[in-house]
Amino acid sequence: MKVGERHYRSIWADERRDAVHIIDQSRLPHVFETLRIPSMEAMAEAIRQMRLRGAPLIGVAAAFGIALAMLRDASDASLSQACNALRATRPTAVNLAWALARVRERLEDLKPADRVEAAWKEAQAIADEDVALNAAIGRHGVVLLQKEYEHLQRPVNILTHCNAGWVATVDWGTVTAPIFMAHEMGIPIHVWVDETRPRNQGLLTAWELAGHGVAHTLVVDNAGGHLMQQKKVDLVMVGADRVTRRGDVCNKIGTYLKALAARDNGIPFYACVPSPTIDWTIEDGVEEIPIEERDPDEVRHVRGLDSDGKYASVAIATAKTPIANPSFDVTPHDLVTGIITEKGIARASERELLAFWPREQHSKAYLT
Amino acid sequence: MKVGERHYRSIWADERRDAVHIIDQSRLPHVFETLRIPSMEAMAEAIRQMRLRGAPLIGVAAAFGIALAMLRDASDASLSQACNALRATRPTAVNLAWALARVRERLEDLKPADRVEAAWKEAQAIADEDVALNAAIGRHGVVLLQKEYEHLQRPVNILTHCNAGWVATVDWGTVTAPIFMAHEMGIPIHVWVDETRPRNQGLLTAWELAGHGVAHTLVVDNAGGHLMQQKKVDLVMVGADRVTRRGDVCNKIGTYLKALAARDNGIPFYACVPSPTIDWTIEDGVEEIPIEERDPDEVRHVRGLDSDGKYASVAIATAKTPIANPSFDVTPHDLVTGIITEKGIARASERELLAFWPREQHSKAYLT
Repeated sequence: MKVGERHYRSIWADERRDAVHIIDQSRLPHVFETLRIPSMEAMAEAIRQMRLRGAPLIGVAAAFGIALAMLRDASDASLSQACNALRATRPTAVNLAWALARVRERLEDLKPADRVEAAWKEAQAIADEDVALNAAIGRHGVVLLQKEYEHLQRPVNILTHCNAGWVATVDWGTVTAPIFMAHEMGIPIHVWVDETRPRNQGLLTAWELAGHGVAHTLVVDNAGGHLMQQKKVDLVMVGADRVTRRGDVCNKIGTYLKALAARDNGIPFYACVPSPTIDWTIEDGVEEIPIEERDPDEVRHVRGLDSDGKYASVAIATAKTPIANPSFDVTPHDLVTGIITEKGIARASERELLAFWPREQHSKAYLT
Repeated sequence: MKVGERHYRSIWADERRDAVHIIDQSRLPHVFETLRIPSMEAMAEAIRQMRLRGAPLIGVAAAFGIALAMLRDASDASLSQACNALRATRPTAVNLAWALARVRERLEDLKPADRVEAAWKEAQAIADEDVALNAAIGRHGVVLLQKEYEHLQRPVNILTHCNAGWVATVDWGTVTAPIFMAHEMGIPIHVWVDETRPRNQGLLTAWELAGHGVAHTLVVDNAGGHLMQQKKVDLVMVGADRVTRRGDVCNKIGTYLKALAARDNGIPFYACVPSPTIDWTIEDGVEEIPIEERDPDEVRHVRGLDSDGKYASVAIATAKTPIANPSFDVTPHDLVTGIITEKGIARASERELLAFWPREQHSKAYLT
């Protein structure tokens, strides 16, 4: 998407195919900087340091990492070593493991001489598929925004939580795809952006929207209920880390509170979800999805620019203050108006989701 | 309440009656420091700089401010000038104006020679009445915690939002009164403390609980819904800035979201409210209470200790990011299980509140 006047993806191969370029997300929203990644080791380091983040993007980055490794040494040993090194950067990232397996499978049976070309192609294909998936979500989601605008005849107010934006993917993003498309179609919109403590990923969303010229306002996570009560929100759109087969939505901590407020105020609540995010093996998200408890220091420390304009952290709580940091919550399907997928919009129900993916009928854990 | 092993009030007169002492809240939670306030001007400055905060405490501080002014000059002109100077420090604070009017009325008809003694007495009386009010709330509220403990036979988990603690009052606090009493009675309790963005007053609550040895855990404001869903919260207790005659609760932004989560999970939700906080003239809080929109920089900047251990601020958002900062929200009465007052616990209904304060029957705005 646009940064200033120029279009960017969050990751792209150098034309000479000797490096990959990324946007250094660790310096956003204050500093926009791209990094040239010349080697697999540099890519692993960038992932580890969270210079790039977002499940889809990490998968693509890992695939490009293999291409960089093949460039230097296309042997079996090198392939194997690169896969291991990249997988170790974020051990729990599903997309990363999936992308590595896919590239490895593609390369394994090739002669080393053919591997470089094939690796670049496969990484590029994974990147392009991610863009296509998000664009399809955008095309389905924008219909909702258009209808809302036709009905309201004034700018449509969307509230979103966390960053389900284009820098978490290769382009478009999931939640931001319909938003950017609406903006380009001339549908007037305004986005309320939750700051999303503890890591404040809402600031990435605000940066993305600003770069593309979409009207938006940053608010603390506490504000959304009041805004809905005051009829300042027309619909809520969030991403998801995992969606169960009946449509329970596991997403960044705090999402559930916004879904409750949406229901209490008769406001539709949508999750924008590419199908790889649907976990067909489970049904009850509250019971079955383990919630990651992350480092208390994410809560204790807040990062931003200090008075000298440099990145710095301040400790809001004392070192002795006990802190809990659950990172996700589950919004039960009955609070979800719809799941916007690349195939269309489904109600949050097993029946409607299976109508799009009938082959998943038998994927339920207890059926296998 | 206790800080370390010693009991403090948040404000107290020097034994020699030549100064007033306060806790410098602007340095909490990291630094505990008391300040000696030797003059009315110093008190006005302390209020203006928010070295003390909390509606009840500000009222008491202003009353002591008058006593300090009388000490130097007990003339009519001095009394009038002191009232004006103190009122101007926080123009919208209702308790401040009320306390000043009360002390002024007490002093006006006295000879200047008698004013110093009377001013100290009146200020002390206002302070003592605040303590008594909160203690009464505590005695009623602790019954709930005791019943809950008898039922659960394990520590009772309370979630609270913002700071309705003792440093916002003279002693006990409103929400913290039942908590401290339960702790002293040996009822095992644990408090989930919302950090309460944007100003993070939850850190004051955490500091108060730590000082008194009450088990607690700090969480981001996003976490409460998940904690309730996981049955880790037994009841929610919050303070209030204003309560309508039917029991709508206006409190720090984000309170409404916690009330929704409490209802969705069958968890009781209580507001701890001294009667001066009840506005008998209005009924529908969502419609009738204007919500203060505060400085966006409260959201943009976060204050804490930097790596040198000094207070500093970091900017989380860029200077260009549009920010909205509504400061309060309204929890409709049907989400409120009960209002814990100094007279007892009322359901959030006009009928039950009027049963405690029958004279307020005719205070409704449209009846007058």
